[in-house]
Amino acid sequence: MSKFLKNPVAPFEVDPRKPIDRILEDMGRISFQGRNLARAFQVWQNMLNDDAFIFFGLAGAMVPAGMRKIICFLIENRMIDCLVSTGANLFHDITETVGYKHYIGSPHADDNELFEHGIDRIYDTFALEKEFEAVDAVIYKLSKKLDRSKSYTTREYLNFIGKQLGKILKNAGIVSTAARVGIPIYCPAIADSSIAIALAALEKNKDEFMKFDVVGDVRETAEIVLLNNLTGVIYISGGTPKNFIQQTEVTAPMMSGKKIGHKYAIQVTADSPHWGGLSGCTFEEAQSWGKISKNALMATVNCDSTIALPLLVSALAARFGSKMKKRPLKKYPFK
Amino acid sequence: MSKFLKNPVAPFEVDPRKPIDRILEDMGRISFQGRNLARAFQVWQNMLNDDAFIFFGLAGAMVPAGMRKIICFLIENRMIDCLVSTGANLFHDITETVGYKHYIGSPHADDNELFEHGIDRIYDTFALEKEFEAVDAVIYKLSKKLDRSKSYTTREYLNFIGKQLGKILKNAGIVSTAARVGIPIYCPAIADSSIAIALAALEKNKDEFMKFDVVGDVRETAEIVLLNNLTGVIYISGGTPKNFIQQTEVTAPMMSGKKIGHKYAIQVTADSPHWGGLSGCTFEEAQSWGKISKNALMATVNCDSTIALPLLVSALAARFGSKMKKRPLKKYPFK
Amino acid sequence: MSKFLKNPVAPFEVDPRKPIDRILEDMGRISFQGRNLARAFQVWQNMLNDDAFIFFGLAGAMVPAGMRKIICFLIENRMIDCLVSTGANLFHDITETVGYKHYIGSPHADDNELFEHGIDRIYDTFALEKEFEAVDAVIYKLSKKLDRSKSYTTREYLNFIGKQLGKILKNAGIVSTAARVGIPIYCPAIADSSIAIALAALEKNKDEFMKFDVVGDVRETAEIVLLNNLTGVIYISGGTPKNFIQQTEVTAPMMSGKKIGHKYAIQVTADSPHWGGLSGCTFEEAQSWGKISKNALMATVNCDSTIALPLLVSALAARFGSKMKKRPLKKYPFK
Amino acid sequence: MSKFLKNPVAPFEVDPRKPIDRILEDMGRISFQGRNLARAFQVWQNMLNDDAFIFFGLAGAMVPAGMRKIICFLIENRMIDCLVSTGANLFHDITETVGYKHYIGSPHADDNELFEHGIDRIYDTFALEKEFEAVDAVIYKLSKKLDRSKSYTTREYLNFIGKQLGKILKNAGIVSTAARVGIPIYCPAIADSSIAIALAALEKNKDEFMKFDVVGDVRETAEIVLLNNLTGVIYISGGTPKNFIQQTEVTAPMMSGKKIGHKYAIQVTADSPHWGGLSGCTFEEAQSWGKISKNALMATVNCDSTIALPLLVSALAARFGSKMKKRPLKKYPFK
Repeated sequence: MSKFLKNPVAPFEVDPRKPIDRILEDMGRISFQGRNLARAFQVWQNMLNDDAFIFFGLAGAMVPAGMRKIICFLIENRMIDCLVSTGANLFHDITETVGYKHYIGSPHADDNELFEHGIDRIYDTFALEKEFEAVDAVIYKLSKKLDRSKSYTTREYLNFIGKQLGKILKNAGIVSTAARVGIPIYCPAIADSSIAIALAALEKNKDEFMKFDVVGDVRETAEIVLLNNLTGVIYISGGTPKNFIQQTEVTAPMMSGKKIGHKYAIQVTADSPHWGGLSGCTFEEAQSWGKISKNALMATVNCDSTIALPLLVSALAARFGSKMKKRPLKKYPFK
Repeated sequence: MSKFLKNPVAPFEVDPRKPIDRILEDMGRISFQGRNLARAFQVWQNMLNDDAFIFFGLAGAMVPAGMRKIICFLIENRMIDCLVSTGANLFHDITETVGYKHYIGSPHADDNELFEHGIDRIYDTFALEKEFEAVDAVIYKLSKKLDRSKSYTTREYLNFIGKQLGKILKNAGIVSTAARVGIPIYCPAIADSSIAIALAALEKNKDEFMKFDVVGDVRETAEIVLLNNLTGVIYISGGTPKNFIQQTEVTAPMMSGKKIGHKYAIQVTADSPHWGGLSGCTFEEAQSWGKISKNALMATVNCDSTIALPLLVSALAARFGSKMKKRPLKKYPFK
Repeated sequence: MSKFLKNPVAPFEVDPRKPIDRILEDMGRISFQGRNLARAFQVWQNMLNDDAFIFFGLAGAMVPAGMRKIICFLIENRMIDCLVSTGANLFHDITETVGYKHYIGSPHADDNELFEHGIDRIYDTFALEKEFEAVDAVIYKLSKKLDRSKSYTTREYLNFIGKQLGKILKNAGIVSTAARVGIPIYCPAIADSSIAIALAALEKNKDEFMKFDVVGDVRETAEIVLLNNLTGVIYISGGTPKNFIQQTEVTAPMMSGKKIGHKYAIQVTADSPHWGGLSGCTFEEAQSWGKISKNALMATVNCDSTIALPLLVSALAARFGSKMKKRPLKKYPFK
Repeated sequence: MSKFLKNPVAPFEVDPRKPIDRILEDMGRISFQGRNLARAFQVWQNMLNDDAFIFFGLAGAMVPAGMRKIICFLIENRMIDCLVSTGANLFHDITETVGYKHYIGSPHADDNELFEHGIDRIYDTFALEKEFEAVDAVIYKLSKKLDRSKSYTTREYLNFIGKQLGKILKNAGIVSTAARVGIPIYCPAIADSSIAIALAALEKNKDEFMKFDVVGDVRETAEIVLLNNLTGVIYISGGTPKNFIQQTEVTAPMMSGKKIGHKYAIQVTADSPHWGGLSGCTFEEAQSWGKISKNALMATVNCDSTIALPLLVSALAARFGSKMKKRPLKKYPFK
């Protein structure tokens, strides 16, 4: 028998009592994206078992889509060590934290009618424009407490906001939980979000603008990589968080002279490599840049994140159970 | 509160003990494709509870991908009433039935090297060319028993092959199980498959060619619709099976004068509507043709079938358990 | 300078007077799908210059989309030697041939309202159901002239229909032009089309059903490959035509013992390899099967066919001009 | 004849002498994405003819893909009034401006081998890591001339860099041309790029970090909208530039109290709405937010940008010719 034909595909066995971790494990012997999903589950287990530092990149409208508690679970249970997010997800998290909601809607709604009702649509999900405006005011007000003669990394800023939210929250949120637990959050494209809109539009005095030390964010995340040799990455839907985490492995070698590369890599994406963009690019491509290590364990799942993420995290919960919380905080280049 | 904002999104709760049917059910309160997957689970339950006649269209390399036992489970447990498949899936099913295997491979293999080793690649899955040739011979030999002065619908042909396979099989297969249980299989594009290759290449005498009554297939499936008023459809990956099942609702009205339309409709597809093709088209589009009924329950899941199908069928198994098998055979326009 | 860095990308120069063939040629020095489109233009030129036998597979709703005259142009000007099509495109061609039209519509129309007006939607294109029914009657009537004790290959059938249409046509059509010029058309999934619907629904007597020798189609197309050593393939939108043409290189070796493979290969597709299906699979994958020759010239363009096809054919027309028509008919295994 | 069936599809006529603007115009009477491409051409002409303020969002690896001269052409010829770009495109532009190149490569290369040769891959395009490092040094050095006690909007920063580059450039570049002509460039996610890597890694003294006033960027782009009532947007490949430009219509109403919305909107994207992300979302969805005006002229083309952009700009050049340059600079909220 040829060297190419060692492992037969094992047709998936239907069993009414199979728990989710077994379902995902068994999908490791089928083909196509089912296998890739199983592989992502495996690589995430490897990261945790080998105690790698885990960067988690969050893009796409994941909080409006109902992923808030999943991300909180990951933070609480130490299944990730650093979150890099789009600004939108953090804004929407704050929205839910202070008690507002997202609503089940329809992609076929009449958008001009929605506009007249003050409803914003995100594909099949609705939200109330007025509630967003109320959150703008909250963000502006909380941010006002910060010293405007200083500039803050987005990590410092979000930690501050998270702590303030902790005092007024109605629901546990990503920003508030991360601040409480001590998991850093970075938001490299904070300008491209309602957080920045609130800070730009509600501030009458231009000299008073919040200043973000985004270059500091770049430096700090590279320092994380230098402090924690063994790093893994998880990218939900690509976007700026993916590249921002990837580039730590370009910045760190410029600072230290040694090339390392992330050792574990998972991505869930609905994008494709053949358009040439960063969201859809393969981890193999990233190996040419040294962003991903030559022998990294890698899994790319072509799937909507709202399918893959609930399944993966449910399977991790089933597999690790109570063992999770014992994972201690990692080393960070800041207090 | 606006009429648009009745049902809030319920952020997904991670629970290590949640069974798969509860996971899929809870995904019905999140957004995007997660919600659509939950909806597909719901519509399939509705079809079964309302005792609709269920057409199941199977495209994509689902058997090489490890879906054989899932389809057998659906047939055995009466979760579908008629299978329409690409020829490739039936050929690969026969391959596995007679004891050959598919193998876990890689999409990055050197294909010219594989060719030299006689290995055929299907994305990340390998198979041995020689084994396919052995199956060609099996198909040719079994088919030789049929009367060449007659023409056979693909349903008659596959039923015959399935019964013959029943005598020699090593593994339960789709074709053999369907023949034993009495579930019809149609293969509208049988010419486009290794079944037809075997029949064309191994037959020395052109006058002896198997003749398929494909017009008979069209008529018969329309008659199924006329006999079983309440019909539902499930399309795995689009392709000719999707359109062939859809068109029963064009043919039947031409025969009977009454427009009906399928009442339940699920599709799992990685295609998109905006390319204008049939595989990716919406059920709404199908409503303009009358293929899908005005008030049909519909679910479109944009997802790879190797992720969605194991999950959906596992969830159905968990939900229905032993109740399933009691569903009796439906009415068919043939004995 | 490294062996990897021989050919620099040449940024595209905007020039108001650049003709379409120069535009496509210059895109050969840019990246991503622009380069692939240029490569498709180049490979098609190579096929013509080397006088390969050119199979052309047509899928997707290309005729409703306005591609009829382009296909006629390709046939008239000997830019293709054999057409393999979905049944839908041929049905829609006959629709336009006898004087009916497709209409500019919208993907956002209310499909239940369209249904009430008897309008069928194909993404953003509309058609009148009644006109389709009139075409059904035309097809049934023309087909009635054929001998029902015989079975016909789809090539024989479509040639007959094309000749009959030649007598009554209002517009030059694909089927009629191919019949006049002598270019064969195959329709492997004819059962999955309105042609078969017409033949199944309008025939009162089941014994009178048209019988298609689809196994003969498989044999004949393999014989074409054996007669014309140097073959090229062009796949518009994948589907059954793609696999049906690909499989000639599986059937032919079974008949002759020699493995050949298509030497030129172009595909325009909006599908992706990572779903594992045949429509999106790479030509590299096809090389493992021997369907595509080891040293074939290959181009895969990820693009909607309604963008790529008008551009490619306009560029070929600009490049070859009047030289085209001189290409003589190829060898075929039938008269 | 029904109100739905007013405009027939006009099958595309192949003509060897048809210039590119006529080709794109004629595609306006076919279907699917061909029609959408024609519509984008039409809407861009409308923007220019109506003298709208045109925002242009640039994402994806467009400069490595050979789009630099096209963007320079658009700036030089006043076909756009404001550029919002990913940092990568600006970094790669600077790379080409100072004389380095991108190279034609292959997506099938061995990435670990490339890494050993110091070659970075972007899908099918290669670049030399050392050259990127040289550009890092250039950026660091030029940036060093700026006052570190101040913070700069990315517009101010890129204008400064562009002017400096003007003194040393080998090729006309986007950043340098925009600085010379007076077209502003914004880079909302500058932290997520090699520009920020250079500024973070090469600066020994953290107190000396370049500070970007990204909140100022948000305010300023909203002020542009308030100064220029009639605005149009063009999004190449989505990404942060798309949302950053969209959000001007959320920020501006918060500042002024009046809701306006962009009046013209074009997007070229390979993404799809059904994943729920911002890159693929429809302009209809944006109407619910008020980002796009109720009666806006809109065109969404599902196509790789490296195909659509050379065609659209070539067609605009052919259509407008020398008339273009006369369009005067617009009003901006800065000197």
